[in-house]
Amino acid sequence: MKKKKSTLKTLFFEKGVLFLLNQLKLPLEIDYLPCSSEIEVADAIRNMVVRGAPAIGVTAGYGMALAASRHKGLPYTRFRDKMQECSALLYSTRPTAVNLSWALKRMEKVWRGTANPVGISKSMLTEASLIEAEDVELNRSIGKHGSSLIKNGTTVLTHCNAGALATAGWGTALGVIRSAHEAGKKLRVFIDETRPYLQGARITALEIMDLGIDCRLICDNMAGHFMAQGEIDCVIVGADRIAANGDTANKIGTYSLAVLCRFHKIPIYIAAPCSTLDLSVRSGADIPIEQRAESEVTEIAGKRIAPLGIKVLNPSFDVTPACLISAIITEKGVIRPPYRTGLKQLF
Amino acid sequence: MKKKKSTLKTLFFEKGVLFLLNQLKLPLEIDYLPCSSEIEVADAIRNMVVRGAPAIGVTAGYGMALAASRHKGLPYTRFRDKMQECSALLYSTRPTAVNLSWALKRMEKVWRGTANPVGISKSMLTEASLIEAEDVELNRSIGKHGSSLIKNGTTVLTHCNAGALATAGWGTALGVIRSAHEAGKKLRVFIDETRPYLQGARITALEIMDLGIDCRLICDNMAGHFMAQGEIDCVIVGADRIAANGDTANKIGTYSLAVLCRFHKIPIYIAAPCSTLDLSVRSGADIPIEQRAESEVTEIAGKRIAPLGIKVLNPSFDVTPACLISAIITEKGVIRPPYRTGLKQLF
Repeated sequence: MKKKKSTLKTLFFEKGVLFLLNQLKLPLEIDYLPCSSEIEVADAIRNMVVRGAPAIGVTAGYGMALAASRHKGLPYTRFRDKMQECSALLYSTRPTAVNLSWALKRMEKVWRGTANPVGISKSMLTEASLIEAEDVELNRSIGKHGSSLIKNGTTVLTHCNAGALATAGWGTALGVIRSAHEAGKKLRVFIDETRPYLQGARITALEIMDLGIDCRLICDNMAGHFMAQGEIDCVIVGADRIAANGDTANKIGTYSLAVLCRFHKIPIYIAAPCSTLDLSVRSGADIPIEQRAESEVTEIAGKRIAPLGIKVLNPSFDVTPACLISAIITEKGVIRPPYRTGLKQLF
Repeated sequence: MKKKKSTLKTLFFEKGVLFLLNQLKLPLEIDYLPCSSEIEVADAIRNMVVRGAPAIGVTAGYGMALAASRHKGLPYTRFRDKMQECSALLYSTRPTAVNLSWALKRMEKVWRGTANPVGISKSMLTEASLIEAEDVELNRSIGKHGSSLIKNGTTVLTHCNAGALATAGWGTALGVIRSAHEAGKKLRVFIDETRPYLQGARITALEIMDLGIDCRLICDNMAGHFMAQGEIDCVIVGADRIAANGDTANKIGTYSLAVLCRFHKIPIYIAAPCSTLDLSVRSGADIPIEQRAESEVTEIAGKRIAPLGIKVLNPSFDVTPACLISAIITEKGVIRPPYRTGLKQLF
């Protein structure tokens, strides 16, 4: 069976220009923003043109490569000062994104390495594409390991967006679906719209359609109904942070899905790179829960939908206890309970 | 403790004019549409200015009273023909609403009763206000019985809108909350926004705020998280149809809540008038599930939020099996399992 090739890319580098898919315009416009300088790249990260920690890391890598190319005519000491400055600029855009500082440190090793700006500039482009390629490779590994859990004819439910557009490519939870699809398995995907920010409706729906996989968009509160009707065979989601005992913080709504899965005896899998594991956090109770703006709930697409003055709660994610999770899929393999032992062995 | 009196009314009749709260403009505008004729009333029902089966029934009653007043100068036979015509007009607006045909039949008994149009016209206004008062009284009874289940200091979660604005006043699920509040119990209410049509965010939020009860609006997928945090003590919802065995069809998302309640050992109550019971339906398996327009999911406030061409599933309600329901609250009392016996005894 001929598989449709994805036409969506988080980013691509062509003739000295970095093109970023403008995620602010999704799903109705597929528009690539050209960036020729580190300043344009910094603006794009800050304005959320690109989102998802791995994608931001790769973008910052290319931002440094663009900076090196622009400033390669400078004498070496001035060039190094300039690189320092550009790195600080890119870092300031989303200082909490772990992959951003990681990528900038990796680029720093290159521009501190020799005393030849022209040579450095070439090496930096190579390094940026290496970071990109490694991220895709890592996701493909997650996909390959996860695919072994997906039988032919399965209907998968997913929540939020853990797809190619949150990474340099392929995706984590969607990477598993993609790998199973590529392996020739017939799949159907139910997509939770994922209130309040609608990542499912806006981004996952687009990605799954783009891959040519049969899919259905539903509201989050419909998942239980379709499980009761026997329509769902498994749930696959990504993760924001995984504690040492396997408790997993992920987009709000994941916990409710895990409880529904338990009741209906349906497996729920977490797909995430090892970098998501935080062994310094003993359990989910120690993961702080970020509260986001009320306007995400009370306004949709700029239109107010709730009465003025209403109090709103908007936790950005919830914690699913390890006891409800069927398996954690990483690039190093599939981890089954008990997680404390299995996760430790990854390092 | 002085309770804030509600300022919202589904409708009121004043100096020969029926005023209907225009529910299309909620929650941002509180606007009453004046209707002086049966034609204006028919338009208002058809255009969803007023919604909820009980509210529609009462509105149609007043529509017939307005018609009688306008045509009371006609000779009796022509008056009767005119009443027949007006009744058909009002019936045509929402032919599937059970309470609509019931109210029109009740009004018909009045206009067929004597041969004096002027006298009939007065009696019809009396009958319409009686239908209104009876509906409020019935809801107050549901409220009173349900209130016995609500302890002081309880946090209630509700879904969709089963409030005063779906009835002539007071409400069913919200009627229980209202009665408990009026009885001086300290309450807190969590309100599910209720995708896709957002009845919770638009209408329930407005009603609960208007009553001066402490409340929080949440997205539907957050309910499980707040249950796990120990924030929710019980769930109260309305019902669209209750089968002879207690299986209950209600707004989509109710079933997921019931499963979450079972997992967290939290009671879930159904509040509904006896007219919601359909003893001819043996179980939930025999209740057909209405599928509604895809645009309810893909568009919010007229703005497209999902990719063009995406397939959407939009069941309007789900069925909660009796075994997950803690009690059914009716105007005749609180029914506990086994429901088949308890529900039969109501008749």
